[in-house]
Amino acid sequence: MERDDNTHTAMATTPLASWNEGPAKQAIMDFVERVTVPISPDFVPVAQRIATFDNDGTLWCEQPMQVQLYFAGERLDQLAKRDPSLRDREPFKSYLARDIESMKRFGKRGLLEVGLAAHAGDTEEEFEVEARAWLDRARHPKLGVLFKELTYQPQRELLDYLKAHGFKNFIVTGGGIDVVRALAEDAYGIPPEQVVGSSNKTSFEIRDGKAVVVKQAELGSFDDREVKPQNIALHIGRRPILAFGNSDGDLAMLRYTLTGGGPRLGLLLHHDDDEREFAYDREFQLSPLVEALDHADEYGITVVSMKSDWRTVFGADVKQAAA
Amino acid sequence: MERDDNTHTAMATTPLASWNEGPAKQAIMDFVERVTVPISPDFVPVAQRIATFDNDGTLWCEQPMQVQLYFAGERLDQLAKRDPSLRDREPFKSYLARDIESMKRFGKRGLLEVGLAAHAGDTEEEFEVEARAWLDRARHPKLGVLFKELTYQPQRELLDYLKAHGFKNFIVTGGGIDVVRALAEDAYGIPPEQVVGSSNKTSFEIRDGKAVVVKQAELGSFDDREVKPQNIALHIGRRPILAFGNSDGDLAMLRYTLTGGGPRLGLLLHHDDDEREFAYDREFQLSPLVEALDHADEYGITVVSMKSDWRTVFGADVKQAAA
Repeated sequence: MERDDNTHTAMATTPLASWNEGPAKQAIMDFVERVTVPISPDFVPVAQRIATFDNDGTLWCEQPMQVQLYFAGERLDQLAKRDPSLRDREPFKSYLARDIESMKRFGKRGLLEVGLAAHAGDTEEEFEVEARAWLDRARHPKLGVLFKELTYQPQRELLDYLKAHGFKNFIVTGGGIDVVRALAEDAYGIPPEQVVGSSNKTSFEIRDGKAVVVKQAELGSFDDREVKPQNIALHIGRRPILAFGNSDGDLAMLRYTLTGGGPRLGLLLHHDDDEREFAYDREFQLSPLVEALDHADEYGITVVSMKSDWRTVFGADVKQAAA
Repeated sequence: MERDDNTHTAMATTPLASWNEGPAKQAIMDFVERVTVPISPDFVPVAQRIATFDNDGTLWCEQPMQVQLYFAGERLDQLAKRDPSLRDREPFKSYLARDIESMKRFGKRGLLEVGLAAHAGDTEEEFEVEARAWLDRARHPKLGVLFKELTYQPQRELLDYLKAHGFKNFIVTGGGIDVVRALAEDAYGIPPEQVVGSSNKTSFEIRDGKAVVVKQAELGSFDDREVKPQNIALHIGRRPILAFGNSDGDLAMLRYTLTGGGPRLGLLLHHDDDEREFAYDREFQLSPLVEALDHADEYGITVVSMKSDWRTVFGADVKQAAA
């Protein structure tokens, strides 16, 4: 997928060029002005301008299932060559067949747990090399383009806009922390130390004289729902003033953000655009959106409609090109 | 303790002004030049210039015991008012009496665990307010000055020097992550998200409509020895290129740093200056230095002598003033 040069120029000169004029864009721009103009009564010092973003379904496409699960599937393919009995046992059987409907029975946590465990024994550096190589070649099963080209252009613009206004952007993802790190620096300009996510336990070892941190099979943290604010407290140590999510897995983070003192902005992306991306919410078993949508007003959450608030989704019409 | 104005001017104009000319200062300046001069074959891009510092005994004084333990002692005083039976039970009894020799029997981990547990029930924000208030008034029992004035001037200069050369400085401390965060921004210019440390488990709760993260009594991570590189992998996601410690609790971090590819610098502060600070190493039960000192050459660790490498320790002669 080539980025359109005109779009790129527009991005450089007009903030949030891929956002349509409307209440969501207005809410973002008003908020940023309120917290960054020095004479504003709601001015927030740079050091406190923390923004947290979910990744799957918020910064890039998570349909028909989270990208990470394809990466794990490929690793399981390798393991199944050594141990063919995996093909007869669930959840490996469904995983190996990429039988998404069957996989959904195991839930996001169950699938992630198996996926992370499949990388046990890797050092941090080995995992990074594998993840980057995979991201450089793995393609979306329906849309044909590389997964890494399925980040949302309006969100990349938003990250740039916030950064230009002194915000420090963090990803707080239910996905595996290290696979998202392998993506985030190039795709979003977010360095590894600003990625918080699910993780396995590790060990420290000396291998051939070299000190290494090695992934273990056991889950350390499943960074979803109430664990997101807990991990924000652990990793960041400040309450964000802006958060952006797209599912009930982000609701605790949104409420944690919105119930702090002073100005706050909580945003929820609603996938209501079946033409340019996918339309789904409460029925998506691997990351449903129910409570956050039903109670958005009550909690002060600003809902962003992909269909009406975004001028483009990916920067090029990937879905129609694939059809 | 007032900072000397002349010292401040010297700091601003001469890098590492409080470091004596000698092999340690030379090793630091050579290393920084090697990794930051663009034409150098060992040039390291800014994003990879990660430096990690231990805190207790590396950035500030840890004698006669780690500062954090005094903070916990004060909290235990309050708890003992409500539950006087604590005065009859160890380790509370020794803690409440500030009987350091008795306390040492419980080890750093044991004392820290009790200390962190004493804050169970605090929200993150409540804890920060308490910790900052305490740091604003708590004084060293022998030296008379505020604990927060016992940071090492040569180290503050080193942090500034590295930052000016594109390094991102992290603290990786065995101390409680949140009490060090309450100190680090003002004392070292290191923001909360660049502090990694020991921590308790937490819960997420809605209290009176406000989402809060609450400290629990149970230890989550004791960030010492091999856990330091594990937590560096979890929080930072990159291997540091420079690390600075002062005890065997830092050895795994130093080896993790030094055995990566490319240019590396690992520094070990040796407390050999009983006149200006304290002279101790292998006999300090709460954080002994044995293996890292004995094997410094083998592991490629540069030993820094407080006595000979530092022109001043605190910027003013605190110890002689107290004597």
